[in-house]
Amino acid sequence: MNDQHIASAFDRDLEEIQAHVMKMGGLVEEAIRQGAKSLKQRDEELAEQVRRGDKQIDAMDTLIQEECARLLALRQPIASDLRTVLTVMRIAANLERVGDYAKNMAKRTSVLVHMQPIDGASGAISRMSKEVQLMLSDVLDAYIRRDEELAQDVRHRDIEVDQMYNALFREFLTFMMEDPRNISSCMHLHFIAKNIERMGDHVTTIADQVIYLVTGELPDEARPKGNAVNYELPTSGV
Amino acid sequence: MNDQHIASAFDRDLEEIQAHVMKMGGLVEEAIRQGAKSLKQRDEELAEQVRRGDKQIDAMDTLIQEECARLLALRQPIASDLRTVLTVMRIAANLERVGDYAKNMAKRTSVLVHMQPIDGASGAISRMSKEVQLMLSDVLDAYIRRDEELAQDVRHRDIEVDQMYNALFREFLTFMMEDPRNISSCMHLHFIAKNIERMGDHVTTIADQVIYLVTGELPDEARPKGNAVNYELPTSGV
Repeated sequence: MNDQHIASAFDRDLEEIQAHVMKMGGLVEEAIRQGAKSLKQRDEELAEQVRRGDKQIDAMDTLIQEECARLLALRQPIASDLRTVLTVMRIAANLERVGDYAKNMAKRTSVLVHMQPIDGASGAISRMSKEVQLMLSDVLDAYIRRDEELAQDVRHRDIEVDQMYNALFREFLTFMMEDPRNISSCMHLHFIAKNIERMGDHVTTIADQVIYLVTGELPDEARPKGNAVNYELPTSGV
Repeated sequence: MNDQHIASAFDRDLEEIQAHVMKMGGLVEEAIRQGAKSLKQRDEELAEQVRRGDKQIDAMDTLIQEECARLLALRQPIASDLRTVLTVMRIAANLERVGDYAKNMAKRTSVLVHMQPIDGASGAISRMSKEVQLMLSDVLDAYIRRDEELAQDVRHRDIEVDQMYNALFREFLTFMMEDPRNISSCMHLHFIAKNIERMGDHVTTIADQVIYLVTGELPDEARPKGNAVNYELPTSGV
């Protein structure tokens, strides 16, 4: 009876935290979308909004980390409940990093609007950020539905983002060699592309965490061998 | 009596984990040192060693995360003990990221050795990485001695690293504009410089965590307002 009571109190608390993770994920998605839009439309004001908006994302991360710490202290979860709480903390930390990269994208947009535009670059960056944003949307779905297959799908799509980045890298090199006046803007655009590629890496890490949550194991490539984690209490004395 | 027993078992477990954090920190310091050396001396074999060595750093992070999770499950710490365990997890995660950046530095070294060297660049990068490596060494000292002042000092030194990066950025732009044949190598060198600057950011985050560990509060600039975390159990019923 008491166990039952504790379990459902834990579930209730966790549900509240998960709602915050989803809200945070929505804010990060929006930051990517608006960050890419501000670059494409050379909209300095929108870029400034994205930069300011990152404070809210950071605050959500702090809130979720606090709530998880409090949940650990209050409910003292073990086994899969403990795993869930630690996973939620990691997912929030990764979302925070993606938000940081979106902020950095907006920062460089504020510089780029004062430079000569590079033909085609903002379109390619826009497609790349669109893909990462969809991956993020899907990984949040996978998280809430505990959908391993969808999480695996997200992991595989990161390869495409890496390929898009590599193609852009070569393109920027060509632009710079063709005309030295392109160098400054290409340096900034290249950073934006790299930041988006890193967002993809963090979304992939979230996908790894979702897989871990569902199966109890990280994907093979995500971690060195011997990573089976035992959160159970031993049957013998402590 | 029983409380006493539990407390000292916790301390013993924690000490073991902290020894692993220090070992991991030592590996990361060495990765920065050797990564910078491989770049300066154009030593492809050493770069390859640094790349391979990152697996061990990742494995240490996994080990520490597991040990902390097990400690949470077994000892069910609350209040400042819980804070300590969560802080250790964050410190290890940040060390892992610094190790990743050292690996990336070594990766690009392997490409750069086949290109025309850029005068003066590797010296500047070497000084920058030396500074970050010293910051890391100091922050690990600050962690083990619970030395808030030293942690604050590390935070302030990150400003110098940022300034070094900014100076290098301008230098690379000049090199590229002077001679388009410098563009490829400058793009790679610029990334290395940016990676070292990011290492500095992660070391600063570790310093924040040390300050949090000692004082119970994050430095003002590190976090949005309202971040006082309450890990105590409430006096009223759960």
